[in-house]
Amino acid sequence: MAQSRTAIVILGASGDLAKRKLIPALETLYAQNKIDDTNVIIGSGRSEFSDEDFRGLFEVCEGFAKLLHYHTGLDGMKEYIKSQGDFDRIVFFFSLPPRVYADTARELVAQGFGEESSIIIEKPFGHDYPSSVDLNKEITKYFGEHQIYRIDHYLGKETVQNMMVFRFANSIFEPIWNSRYIESIQISAFETIGTEGRAQYFDNAGIIRDMAQNHLMQLLCLVTMEPPITLEADDVRLAKTNVLRTLTIEECHRWQYEGYRNEEGVAPESETETYAELRMRVNNYRWNRVPIFMRTGKYMPRKGTEIGIQFRKLPRLLFNDMGDLAANKIVIRIQPDEGIFIDMQNKVPGTDQTLQQTHMKYTYRDAFENEEIPEAYQRLLLDVLRGDQTLFVSGQETEMSWKLFSGFLDTGEVSIYRRGKVPQSRFAVDWIDFDDY
Amino acid sequence: MAQSRTAIVILGASGDLAKRKLIPALETLYAQNKIDDTNVIIGSGRSEFSDEDFRGLFEVCEGFAKLLHYHTGLDGMKEYIKSQGDFDRIVFFFSLPPRVYADTARELVAQGFGEESSIIIEKPFGHDYPSSVDLNKEITKYFGEHQIYRIDHYLGKETVQNMMVFRFANSIFEPIWNSRYIESIQISAFETIGTEGRAQYFDNAGIIRDMAQNHLMQLLCLVTMEPPITLEADDVRLAKTNVLRTLTIEECHRWQYEGYRNEEGVAPESETETYAELRMRVNNYRWNRVPIFMRTGKYMPRKGTEIGIQFRKLPRLLFNDMGDLAANKIVIRIQPDEGIFIDMQNKVPGTDQTLQQTHMKYTYRDAFENEEIPEAYQRLLLDVLRGDQTLFVSGQETEMSWKLFSGFLDTGEVSIYRRGKVPQSRFAVDWIDFDDY
Repeated sequence: MAQSRTAIVILGASGDLAKRKLIPALETLYAQNKIDDTNVIIGSGRSEFSDEDFRGLFEVCEGFAKLLHYHTGLDGMKEYIKSQGDFDRIVFFFSLPPRVYADTARELVAQGFGEESSIIIEKPFGHDYPSSVDLNKEITKYFGEHQIYRIDHYLGKETVQNMMVFRFANSIFEPIWNSRYIESIQISAFETIGTEGRAQYFDNAGIIRDMAQNHLMQLLCLVTMEPPITLEADDVRLAKTNVLRTLTIEECHRWQYEGYRNEEGVAPESETETYAELRMRVNNYRWNRVPIFMRTGKYMPRKGTEIGIQFRKLPRLLFNDMGDLAANKIVIRIQPDEGIFIDMQNKVPGTDQTLQQTHMKYTYRDAFENEEIPEAYQRLLLDVLRGDQTLFVSGQETEMSWKLFSGFLDTGEVSIYRRGKVPQSRFAVDWIDFDDY
Repeated sequence: MAQSRTAIVILGASGDLAKRKLIPALETLYAQNKIDDTNVIIGSGRSEFSDEDFRGLFEVCEGFAKLLHYHTGLDGMKEYIKSQGDFDRIVFFFSLPPRVYADTARELVAQGFGEESSIIIEKPFGHDYPSSVDLNKEITKYFGEHQIYRIDHYLGKETVQNMMVFRFANSIFEPIWNSRYIESIQISAFETIGTEGRAQYFDNAGIIRDMAQNHLMQLLCLVTMEPPITLEADDVRLAKTNVLRTLTIEECHRWQYEGYRNEEGVAPESETETYAELRMRVNNYRWNRVPIFMRTGKYMPRKGTEIGIQFRKLPRLLFNDMGDLAANKIVIRIQPDEGIFIDMQNKVPGTDQTLQQTHMKYTYRDAFENEEIPEAYQRLLLDVLRGDQTLFVSGQETEMSWKLFSGFLDTGEVSIYRRGKVPQSRFAVDWIDFDDY
């Protein structure tokens, strides 16, 4: 960033996230000349490291390694940064437990950091509605909303970013993107694994807090929102907030996989859900009558995050002889193998009039075989450096989403399901079989 | 056809069409058990052949060869057919010059053929509006409209048949299939060859009569017509007729390729066009303001028949920074390599917000790799056997189409173009580059 010099400070720099995600993402940005030696990357933490020791924690190229420095704790951080050069902007990545977010923010201000600084924080943004309000209240004592970058790494994924392009840069989808043509929206996020070493954290949260309330609600907002007035952060956030303001959760059902209670870190009487399904509605003109289904779980038979748009069936007027024609579907696959699919009826070649639903296909791999699909963190960190908050979650969004889930956290019966098997849905809906794409 | 026994009589059976198209198509239908030894195929013509000699004209399998018989002329044909078995239905394929259509029809009736008989005729159905009216008047003295199968072999092509499925068996296209969203419709049929031994016929016709007035008008009707009430022949014909009734040709420009006049069979002062472009409008609610462009020619740089649906540009509201966004397009490729393409904007993977128009693709070859794509004649002959006139052109359609072209045949300046080069369009339109698909 030649135009302005930015110092990047990673708090909790010897932790897992820095090693797995942040440093690799920053190194890729360096390789793409998106950051260079006008930047500096300062690790910080309780441990004492020399610059050399710190660089030794990561496997990075020499040029990039030179950007890495280390300063223990926050005392004297301001002077330390100054000793590295003149920086107009300082961004602090909180690779820290959320319980210390507020104290860390206060300490930064105590150390003299102000308007030139931004902070990047990651979920969970609270545990429920009241705690999310408290967290935002605490942090915004020290930093304004325009200085706070709340990461939802789903928003950094390519197909998620493409959602606004798909919907608003093409004239052919918006006219049919409403309750007149769409019967239901189905959002699904399946993992094949269990809690994988995060049992203690997970048992305190559950899949609704871990996946539905944040990531999947963001997907829902992007799929259902009205066109924002511009693509600027405030306008996009307003459009998403308007969805949350008109949304109701109608039903929520919870399940737990067999044997979960025997895992280390899990309470023996745990009622935490590892699978959940929800039915919601957006109560506005566009989505009147359209149920929105969401389901997410662990130990599923396959891994994948998809959004399915189920269109309404046609009246059987013209093609009466041809049995029950399947309605159109649009499937947006977020991961893995990003792509968009349109299911439509075509005539099977041959002398008979036989119809078949076939996919019209657009996958990133086919369309952009030579482009590398960036990791979510690359895009998000670059946006922080650019000062663009569009792909970050506002405090208002986090609070509103928690508020919506208020009656549905830790409540209701928890049924048991076998690992590797999707629980029988309680909803009268034909779930789209995302396996077929 | 076990339900009813049909005799197939080919008049002009030793000609080129029988050898190249009819017999191979019938043999394929035999291989698919769509015709069998309850059918009989009788060749007829002025030449004298024994059954053996006649069979020897074609390279066909033994089982199918047994269906083939020969009877010279029409005298005694009724008795000859009876000697082959009891047939409820007799279909006569006129593989004959159009000038003898009327006489042949009269002769058939004189020979005692009546309500049990159908006749199949091929273009040209007249040379202009008055002659098409005359032809229909003559023929319908002897056979009712329900007994006359006018072949337009374009209607037997797979993607053409798929057009109604695409438009009416999918709920997502019909809502945008109108002037609110569509800017223009572009129909294009290019050949790389010249007159190829048909110079004398062609010089008397020109590309407007040979391609535009019949084949391309049929494509236009299928793309622009209102949904028919059913898929039955009368309803589909009515829908197409309604297009023709509301259509006007606004402009027509004609060209002739360099050196055409020197070809054998071409008049030395010939003003016959080998390339033409037209602008039309369908003056109804759906197509108000939408120009429909048509162009077709010989010695073009590539071979292909395509229909392009050019959607309107979006206002540059949201993606202002990203330059001029290309509007959506749907391309239906009739031949070769049948397929449908949707051009749409997607985000190019990467940390920048770059958009690119990419194809969403559906080709027959990909979707149905194991299905053979039948020749147009297979489907059309089978439909005659089934008694289904849906894919055949009504007398009314032929007359109306000729009437529309009345002011545009053999009139106006003929410009010269180089072989292998598309003439510069006289219309202010961005022609879709069908090469890109």
